[in-house]
Amino acid sequence: MADPQPHSVGAVLAQRAGFLEPLILKAGKTLASYELVYETYGTLNAERSNAVLVCHALSGSHHVAGWYAEDPKKVGWWDNLIGPGKPIDTDRFFVIGVNNIGGCHGSTGPGSVDRATGQPYGAAFPLVTVEDWVASQARLMDRLGIGRLAAAIGGSLGGMQAMQWTLSYPDRIGHALVIAAASRLSTQNIAFNDVARQAIVSDPDFHGGNFYAHKAIPARGLKLARMLGHITYLSEDLLMEKFGRVLKRDEYGFNYDVEFEIESYLRYQGDKFAQVFDANTYLLMTKALDYFDPAKETGGDLARALSAAKAGFFVASFASDWRFPPERSREMVKALVASRKAVTYAEIDAPHGHDAFLLDNPHYHQLVAAYMDNVAREVGAGERRTALVLAATELAEMRGYGAGREGA
Amino acid sequence: MADPQPHSVGAVLAQRAGFLEPLILKAGKTLASYELVYETYGTLNAERSNAVLVCHALSGSHHVAGWYAEDPKKVGWWDNLIGPGKPIDTDRFFVIGVNNIGGCHGSTGPGSVDRATGQPYGAAFPLVTVEDWVASQARLMDRLGIGRLAAAIGGSLGGMQAMQWTLSYPDRIGHALVIAAASRLSTQNIAFNDVARQAIVSDPDFHGGNFYAHKAIPARGLKLARMLGHITYLSEDLLMEKFGRVLKRDEYGFNYDVEFEIESYLRYQGDKFAQVFDANTYLLMTKALDYFDPAKETGGDLARALSAAKAGFFVASFASDWRFPPERSREMVKALVASRKAVTYAEIDAPHGHDAFLLDNPHYHQLVAAYMDNVAREVGAGERRTALVLAATELAEMRGYGAGREGA
Repeated sequence: MADPQPHSVGAVLAQRAGFLEPLILKAGKTLASYELVYETYGTLNAERSNAVLVCHALSGSHHVAGWYAEDPKKVGWWDNLIGPGKPIDTDRFFVIGVNNIGGCHGSTGPGSVDRATGQPYGAAFPLVTVEDWVASQARLMDRLGIGRLAAAIGGSLGGMQAMQWTLSYPDRIGHALVIAAASRLSTQNIAFNDVARQAIVSDPDFHGGNFYAHKAIPARGLKLARMLGHITYLSEDLLMEKFGRVLKRDEYGFNYDVEFEIESYLRYQGDKFAQVFDANTYLLMTKALDYFDPAKETGGDLARALSAAKAGFFVASFASDWRFPPERSREMVKALVASRKAVTYAEIDAPHGHDAFLLDNPHYHQLVAAYMDNVAREVGAGERRTALVLAATELAEMRGYGAGREGA
Repeated sequence: MADPQPHSVGAVLAQRAGFLEPLILKAGKTLASYELVYETYGTLNAERSNAVLVCHALSGSHHVAGWYAEDPKKVGWWDNLIGPGKPIDTDRFFVIGVNNIGGCHGSTGPGSVDRATGQPYGAAFPLVTVEDWVASQARLMDRLGIGRLAAAIGGSLGGMQAMQWTLSYPDRIGHALVIAAASRLSTQNIAFNDVARQAIVSDPDFHGGNFYAHKAIPARGLKLARMLGHITYLSEDLLMEKFGRVLKRDEYGFNYDVEFEIESYLRYQGDKFAQVFDANTYLLMTKALDYFDPAKETGGDLARALSAAKAGFFVASFASDWRFPPERSREMVKALVASRKAVTYAEIDAPHGHDAFLLDNPHYHQLVAAYMDNVAREVGAGERRTALVLAATELAEMRGYGAGREGA
């Protein structure tokens, strides 16, 4: 059979690691034991210096790159960025994708059976934070024999985890790539999250979070949450360009059926999502987003909050992203610069809105490739086999963007 | 008893007009008869030339100014703009507020009893459009003996009605004041509306629109719709300034209760709204918004679509309004200028977002006052008794803003 996804890491297998040591969560509760599902691509070098952790966002998973032999269409969510010769080059790096605790793709989450009761956790599953995820990821790194990450990378909520790594384990991470993220949600972000949560919890099929026992899923609520999320992940201009005011039929129907293409698209996306995603996971992920705020302990002084970090930072934002706009990234960059960290900032002129971090964009990918090329050299991860697309001058220019390169 | 609302038109009484002549709706259906509830302030002059119609938006009503003797706290929604000596000066103008057909404040709507069945219309109530509203408003003007409006004014969906007046009845309106509106909704606007509608129709208490018979209200859906609407009516900066990330309690609760002040505020607003507003009206109003598009018949050529108008136009937008941003107003102004209409445009630097059109803002109110002062002089509506706040030079400057004054 021909490789269904060329230039890919190819067919991959998810792996599973069990942890019996209790995890004390920030919320005060304890997870007595848990399992993490993960995938790896590439080879850990002899020095164990070339590991790159990929952190996922709200609806992501451990399946970051490649495809499954039994389902070749199930391609990893960041396959365009990660693979042989790709910006995160699996010929040089050992890349790890992990499903976070509380997720619904195999790691222990609200839908998992609680050994103490023999029933799914449901509402009893504790709220987890970005800090908790990073702690659980560090344990997975221990298990894999990785003392120090060359880098952690993530977009959106994933970017928050990459940032948290530099604070929780400053000596265990070389670089954090924080993309389309923020050091904390804005009021508007929290407000949208709460509408999504209220949609789910007010769905009669939610059953207070214990819908598993009722053989139900709060599909109406999840659908609404996803529809709303989707609108905010795309730029207004892109929506206008992609859907405009195009009708589903020739003329206005003057009823409540689908009238415009955009309605059809959103309802379809919402229905699809509701069938595959766990409602409790959705709630928990949005809460983790709300809670993340490293400057909370320093009275809002982000520079001081970031002072413990020793990593180099790559921060990128997308001009059309209004959920995590460039302003929020610039706040991080300013704080990092004030805290004398090494930081490279890129503001990318992509039209897609927040979703741009997942999409193909030559400029964006070139910037990540160039940064990761430096990381590879730093950790002795071998030479790039494919030609680097970015000229040295462009790279220098990129470094000077916004914040320049200061500190170590 | 002292006047509870000084500088107000004072205690007002709603009036009711029945129309037995059928209204043929744009959707093809016919409303056999209907009633309109309205209020008037000020005195119609002998020439019947000083009438100003106020059109309401999604959740507005005929109660535009003043208060009710039996409930002095129930102040009209545009009382800050309309009254003696106010920008729309009831000492000079005869002002009419009317609840639109399909509404839930007294005019015939989905909650009204259908004479044909003796039951509330519910799902059987036909969809109505901006054009239909304007036609029904024109009949009310006939009834009041008003051949020609000095002006029609409205914000948001109300602005669309003011604009439609100039197209449906070019000889019956002198000026249209179109505030925080657009000549058609963007894709994103339609998308938000559809999420709101899906929230309502998927609420089990909606009963396909016939919830009256079930003695139920789809409160969960309406609450979600209102929460979402509220977020989009306010600017992100205002939300940040007003609520920030302030917690309801001292510390994170790590549960799904209210955590942040913004959640408390939105849930409260949503709950309150759900108890007083009709779900079918909400659906119908959002559809009227979606459908409005005068350039639909001219292949998107708005200038040509507006060519029938003879009125003068006052168009205003607010810099922080992202639901109906200045770009949308500028589109209208460009088309009006291209169509050689008299147009005055103001882009007002208010921080409140879309809701700014309802709020006190000296600059905004001065601009409306100055424009209406000209209208008053044009129709011989008497001299202003209070000093005009705007200097002549400022007014000239305003006229030059954006588009200048062209045409008649």
